[in-house]
Amino acid sequence: MAPAVPAAGPAARVGFIGLGVMGRSMALNLLRAGYAVTVHSRTMAKAGDVLAAGAAAAGSVAAAARSADVVVTIVGFPADVRDVLLGPDGVVAHARPGSLIIDMTTSEPALAVEIAEAARVRGIDALDAPVSGGDVGARNGTLSIMVGGAPEAFARARPLLAALGTTIVHQGPPGSGQHTKLCNQIVIASTMIGVMEGLLYARRAGLDPDAVLASIGAGAAGSWTLSNLYPRAVHGDDAPGFYVRHFLKDIRIALAEAERMGLRLPGLALAERLYQDLVDQGGALLGTQALHRVLEAASPPANPR
Amino acid sequence: MAPAVPAAGPAARVGFIGLGVMGRSMALNLLRAGYAVTVHSRTMAKAGDVLAAGAAAAGSVAAAARSADVVVTIVGFPADVRDVLLGPDGVVAHARPGSLIIDMTTSEPALAVEIAEAARVRGIDALDAPVSGGDVGARNGTLSIMVGGAPEAFARARPLLAALGTTIVHQGPPGSGQHTKLCNQIVIASTMIGVMEGLLYARRAGLDPDAVLASIGAGAAGSWTLSNLYPRAVHGDDAPGFYVRHFLKDIRIALAEAERMGLRLPGLALAERLYQDLVDQGGALLGTQALHRVLEAASPPANPR
Repeated sequence: MAPAVPAAGPAARVGFIGLGVMGRSMALNLLRAGYAVTVHSRTMAKAGDVLAAGAAAAGSVAAAARSADVVVTIVGFPADVRDVLLGPDGVVAHARPGSLIIDMTTSEPALAVEIAEAARVRGIDALDAPVSGGDVGARNGTLSIMVGGAPEAFARARPLLAALGTTIVHQGPPGSGQHTKLCNQIVIASTMIGVMEGLLYARRAGLDPDAVLASIGAGAAGSWTLSNLYPRAVHGDDAPGFYVRHFLKDIRIALAEAERMGLRLPGLALAERLYQDLVDQGGALLGTQALHRVLEAASPPANPR
Repeated sequence: MAPAVPAAGPAARVGFIGLGVMGRSMALNLLRAGYAVTVHSRTMAKAGDVLAAGAAAAGSVAAAARSADVVVTIVGFPADVRDVLLGPDGVVAHARPGSLIIDMTTSEPALAVEIAEAARVRGIDALDAPVSGGDVGARNGTLSIMVGGAPEAFARARPLLAALGTTIVHQGPPGSGQHTKLCNQIVIASTMIGVMEGLLYARRAGLDPDAVLASIGAGAAGSWTLSNLYPRAVHGDDAPGFYVRHFLKDIRIALAEAERMGLRLPGLALAERLYQDLVDQGGALLGTQALHRVLEAASPPANPR
């Protein structure tokens, strides 16, 4: 059974919208894989290295979408996704029938369903395909890509996604990619609480936090967060690998979805309160590991020295 | 500087008290390493394979302690530790001056300090050396051993501990081993909440939990708990690797220590409430992954099918 529409191999022309930290690295990987890439970003100043690597520039979202076989979007918040994908000047309105849209933003499952439906009406395939793996994963092409949408659309997208990530799993119908990414964030949220509470306890008990990591890092307490973010917190490095304000956005999307499904997630609700406190204390642009600050602030040492 | 007392090499006679799941495997590993081991347990019925492997049996704690160069204890709750170590018929009262006591139970830091002090008065070295790594780590001799006590005592114990574990870290003065183990449990507690909330969300969103694990297991959400206990929960296996009632004991010791230090640990406090709910629902003898049950019970499906 030959696919009605060609798979998104390197012959495909790619429209790429969103050149944040993640988007830039991903566009570069598509260029390296041989794709003809036309980029657009709200702030085209960010496009420098991508243009230098051979991308064409488009003056608008519509222009980037119009000539593309595949349109990849990775923007900021759900409101941006709605604007860029569903707005009158957006991707769905201007992409060619028969083309394929892949939204890689972490966003709302219901919005992904809405996009897939609007695209279908115009004869366009659409996938939600958020990623994890951070700036390093985007740079090295080792992202985990969680895909929701029709199986045929997933099959079309697969060659292109393989230029961006190493773990590429079709999770189900539209919205399933977003749901899976929310699972990822739900797991991380409480893991972070545990790791940073462990750090706070270690310090207050007079232990050497590095020695504690040597004892507990490789066992049942072990996690990516413990191995990677605990050491940064120990050594006062709260620089962003992932921004607090983006994580808080994801946590809130997950809480809203959970509420819609009648689901109580007390750990996630606690994370929401703690990260809101961190934002209130001026931490929106810190890395997520800065959670240790609000825990410490809530428990000032009894005898400060 | 030659040590005043010989190191605990295979020439040492070991008194071993406590033959639970962990203790039995550890005693066997000491026998394999060439130690002469005399065992005592509250229920000597558990001693079968250890006696078959060459251990001698002692009829009482005092008898096991009296003839030993090193006394190893691994019992259940802090009350047991107090009784076995500090009671009138206990180890400290009956061990030889110059001997070495190693309590490997997960217990209270303050109690470890008390034991070390009582031992010191009698000319005995004492270490707190709780472990992590579970039944498998005990069996394979790959435990992580977290040690509190005097450096000289740690140096004496090291050869013997090397027969039991592969990660052996001196964490500081008496009580530091216990504090480190509590850090381990604090980290695990909230990690477990995150993992099981992720599972609950995945199920309720209609995802395939195994596919979700394939997407999130190797990235920033990754943890020992996610790789090892999430699959058991997915497939309905709530059998104990580690008992709920023992974990709840550890959580409560950590919360009490935290309170003493003026420390608020909201994630750990949440874990305490959830695990108490699990015990109230009859789950005391399940494995810790059974936490998913209380989360599910708190959020019954809106439209049960």
